[in-house]
Amino acid sequence: MTQTLQIDPSNFPEIMDVETSILSARTKMMRVAVSRLGKMGCFALPPRCLPALGAFMSDPVMRPRYNIPLEEEREVALARLKRICDAGFISVLDFWNNPLRIFAAHELAAIIDPAMTTKMTVQFNLFGGTVLKLGTERHHKKLLGGIDTLEDVGCFGLTELGYGNNAVEMETTAIYDKETDEIVVNTPHPLAQKYWITNGAVHARHVVVFAQLLVKDTNHGIHGVLVPIRDENLKVLPKVRVEDMGHKMGLNGVDNAKLSFDNVRVPRENLLNRYSDITPEGEFSSKIKSARSRFLTVADQLLSGRICIASMCMGGSKASLTIALRYAASRLTVGPTGKSNMSILQYQLQQRTLLPLLARTYAINFGLDYVKKRWANQPADGSEHAQVVTMCCAIKPLFGNFIGLAHAAMTAEGDNSVLMQKVAKERLATFTPLQEDAGLSPDANNTAFLHDLLKRRENALFKVRPSARSSRLLARLSCLRLCDDSEEIRLVYNWSQRVPESRVEQFGAVLEGCEESLKPVLSQLHHLYLLDVVEKNPAVFLTHQLLQSDTLTKVVEASREVCRAVGPDALALCDAFDITDPMLSAPIALDWVTYNEGDNQGEV
Amino acid sequence: MTQTLQIDPSNFPEIMDVETSILSARTKMMRVAVSRLGKMGCFALPPRCLPALGAFMSDPVMRPRYNIPLEEEREVALARLKRICDAGFISVLDFWNNPLRIFAAHELAAIIDPAMTTKMTVQFNLFGGTVLKLGTERHHKKLLGGIDTLEDVGCFGLTELGYGNNAVEMETTAIYDKETDEIVVNTPHPLAQKYWITNGAVHARHVVVFAQLLVKDTNHGIHGVLVPIRDENLKVLPKVRVEDMGHKMGLNGVDNAKLSFDNVRVPRENLLNRYSDITPEGEFSSKIKSARSRFLTVADQLLSGRICIASMCMGGSKASLTIALRYAASRLTVGPTGKSNMSILQYQLQQRTLLPLLARTYAINFGLDYVKKRWANQPADGSEHAQVVTMCCAIKPLFGNFIGLAHAAMTAEGDNSVLMQKVAKERLATFTPLQEDAGLSPDANNTAFLHDLLKRRENALFKVRPSARSSRLLARLSCLRLCDDSEEIRLVYNWSQRVPESRVEQFGAVLEGCEESLKPVLSQLHHLYLLDVVEKNPAVFLTHQLLQSDTLTKVVEASREVCRAVGPDALALCDAFDITDPMLSAPIALDWVTYNEGDNQGEV
Repeated sequence: MTQTLQIDPSNFPEIMDVETSILSARTKMMRVAVSRLGKMGCFALPPRCLPALGAFMSDPVMRPRYNIPLEEEREVALARLKRICDAGFISVLDFWNNPLRIFAAHELAAIIDPAMTTKMTVQFNLFGGTVLKLGTERHHKKLLGGIDTLEDVGCFGLTELGYGNNAVEMETTAIYDKETDEIVVNTPHPLAQKYWITNGAVHARHVVVFAQLLVKDTNHGIHGVLVPIRDENLKVLPKVRVEDMGHKMGLNGVDNAKLSFDNVRVPRENLLNRYSDITPEGEFSSKIKSARSRFLTVADQLLSGRICIASMCMGGSKASLTIALRYAASRLTVGPTGKSNMSILQYQLQQRTLLPLLARTYAINFGLDYVKKRWANQPADGSEHAQVVTMCCAIKPLFGNFIGLAHAAMTAEGDNSVLMQKVAKERLATFTPLQEDAGLSPDANNTAFLHDLLKRRENALFKVRPSARSSRLLARLSCLRLCDDSEEIRLVYNWSQRVPESRVEQFGAVLEGCEESLKPVLSQLHHLYLLDVVEKNPAVFLTHQLLQSDTLTKVVEASREVCRAVGPDALALCDAFDITDPMLSAPIALDWVTYNEGDNQGEV
Repeated sequence: MTQTLQIDPSNFPEIMDVETSILSARTKMMRVAVSRLGKMGCFALPPRCLPALGAFMSDPVMRPRYNIPLEEEREVALARLKRICDAGFISVLDFWNNPLRIFAAHELAAIIDPAMTTKMTVQFNLFGGTVLKLGTERHHKKLLGGIDTLEDVGCFGLTELGYGNNAVEMETTAIYDKETDEIVVNTPHPLAQKYWITNGAVHARHVVVFAQLLVKDTNHGIHGVLVPIRDENLKVLPKVRVEDMGHKMGLNGVDNAKLSFDNVRVPRENLLNRYSDITPEGEFSSKIKSARSRFLTVADQLLSGRICIASMCMGGSKASLTIALRYAASRLTVGPTGKSNMSILQYQLQQRTLLPLLARTYAINFGLDYVKKRWANQPADGSEHAQVVTMCCAIKPLFGNFIGLAHAAMTAEGDNSVLMQKVAKERLATFTPLQEDAGLSPDANNTAFLHDLLKRRENALFKVRPSARSSRLLARLSCLRLCDDSEEIRLVYNWSQRVPESRVEQFGAVLEGCEESLKPVLSQLHHLYLLDVVEKNPAVFLTHQLLQSDTLTKVVEASREVCRAVGPDALALCDAFDITDPMLSAPIALDWVTYNEGDNQGEV
């Protein structure tokens, strides 16, 4: 196995001490230097948060809990969110005062508890932000205070079972009744139930119901209406049907619901009337002409919501990488002598799996910060809105890729990557090349040609000289974990970022601005990121003759070199994220040997 | 959006009825025809299972449960496994009589309950198979009966906290004490705890402990020793320490434990002595010379275990695809008129996401069946063992790719693929190409060159003519979900399968053998599979000049065509898996509208 993995002790000068993960002097220095990045605000956590964080995390309710009932898990998530609010880490008014604090709070909170943060983003962005922006003084007076304190928990009633997309066609109606000067909200069909509504199952007292607004038999399109669903004792109100969606695969601290309305009557004043209104005389008026535009306006919080989710994923990526790298540095396995005395982070396989992700996390962080600032600083004339919409759409999907979930079948009875290397090694030893011939004429509709193509690909790979061959093979194998990083995604992302700067340029800008002591390591990360983009998406470069295959080979070799060089600084680069141990909580990120000495039932 | 998604009603002749998912006449015929594949044994479910399955699934304990305590979840998994055993779907003696039944039972059981099946594979393959093959008559008489009836639940004590790999270096010792003619099993250090041991936390009465066997101060390498850990009342025995690993992210029906032994004494006869033994005089003898070979022999069940897990994943893949395709066929969304009256399976995006997976599932099924047969029919002289080991190592990792878990962030506030199309469409409308120039000289160590390369890639893509451009873009976007299907994996897999047949050849063989009425649709799947292999891994074809880029473009176009043609038969091709509705249980695979009419708290 040592041979297969090409272990080279010079890869990585320090052997980590398994008991304490003691870091080398060099790495300790790096930790100090790089952690300044955080102070420099390269990682946009809210300045007011960090000092308070120690005390904030010290409360017992913040301790992770696993084996608890669904009901308790939801109460814990709410109690944690209450602490976030009490600590003043977030306020709906920040949309006016400093939107960056809202995004930063999302990143910070997601590291601590994604379920709590999901409830938070619905309360403060979707519900709170909508009341703030679509509502007027009468709604603000009634709700903004309670939104910040959680006395008025709300939810966002847009999605319907039959209209998870094409929401503009939703079936829920809000019909104005001139007789009583009320708006009648109704769910005409099961497909029109408000579906997967966060905070709805237990905690919400209010919902912004999006519905087709009918005044005098005319449909004026989708509008938002405030509907109370629970009284101050959280008892569900008459004619409102709330169905708990129950247990889920994850995020069980989030209480999702199906909501239906049986001709629920609310005062005309509950219409969020910033852009459209109904006069006391029962006349509809709107500042926005087309129904389509009205829909886009009322759903505007989905836009900042994408930045909120991207920020949550950013936090999740940083936490995941920190956990993975700390464990990789402290976990020993087979070394050159055959004994288990070498940290897995010294394995090229592991370095090439984790370090390009670290480089990408830095790059995307800088790109996301740019999008946040562009969103927060839009000119009032709306001239940049289209650009910002595009960026918000582009930044969020990027993070889907980061959320790789492990599965027992990948490691049980032998880790897949290791098994694959075993197979490859054996085949390399026994393979006999096929005879060369002209081959069949290229025809995508001829399966014989396609089948022959597979054989030729295999053959071609074996024709590489043995030494280079195996090392290149391992380089490929070492990317196994990363191959969900699709060319298409960064392609589209690059377009979106050309409006007007690219993520790479953002990284470059940070590089220019940062202090001298940081330039060497940040330059390495910048280099690794660029190499990774090319290496992971070679086809498009080759098909367009932008790159010759020999250069591609050099790219892979260079990436291997930079990974080797960055390895010893990996933990320091994670420290720059300023995530404290209590925030991480994962035993494998801390002293996991001591953790395993006692009987803890898997709890922290 | 209709434009972005290029909806073409002629894509797919039938409109599915959302209420009942009524299938077209053609599709119904296909269902009958293709379901014969199952009868033909193309999908190796055990013949004795299928008829009995209705009754088997009818018991209340088989109904999926979600919001239940950990303790109950584990008891439910055991009760379900008991039903599997009582129904005679599996017996440890099948390793002698008909190993294919064991693999088939794994595939079948995994569709019903993966947690139950995880307990099953440990009981019957790892524990039972080891007792069967490493034990002798004294062990068989004592345990084989109880293994089949679950009166003697056991676990497999190989992995140690510090030795998840490099197990040959494990620290647990089994020292022979001549005075008392006993073997003393001991855990010297927390890193030597037996870790993540399935069935250990609650249900197991026995464990096969793998340990360094010392006789007269000589270490003879890793051997298996039977150690009782609980009495008939499941009370943990003295000097055995069992620590429950508690709640997990999933598979909570599986009771995992940490096991430690404080100089536990067992009779000499508890050594599994098929290959190595200790005489009553205290002399060690072995049929296997080197300690390394002894380790590989005692860990032999890991080999069939890989086929068991591959079979479980095969079942999971079939169930997942069936659920996804049934829902895609019955879920309506925006059609050409803007109304929600078109099934998402009619979208090219959805077809190109799911149908290549369906083709690959068929291909891998045929490949897996081949590996099973090769494993089951090895000649006694062991002449094919090396080949079979390679195949077993190769087949299991293949399935990691199939286990894609959805995450809220991928769909919340807009599905990522749809957002990406939105972004792409906008950029396509507003992009201005850069001026062409010679560009910098290729140098992987020059970040300026790499950065310039990104711009050129983007530019090159826009230079394609508009119509072809957008369709090709969508073709790329439609693969988003599949891009974790790495070139390396199928590459290595192809090598492994060249020992001596490839998965493709297996598909070809089935195609030859099947009845005429099936050839058209199976030929399409075979074609789609080959196209998909090329399309998903273009780089290696291009770098080795096996393929010109214009051919690659044709491959993508051809794949789009075949997907369109296979679409209407997709449900029929799933029916061939012979998965019954009660086995699927997922509401979205059944009548999900009716399911949502009532208050079910998310339970089935």
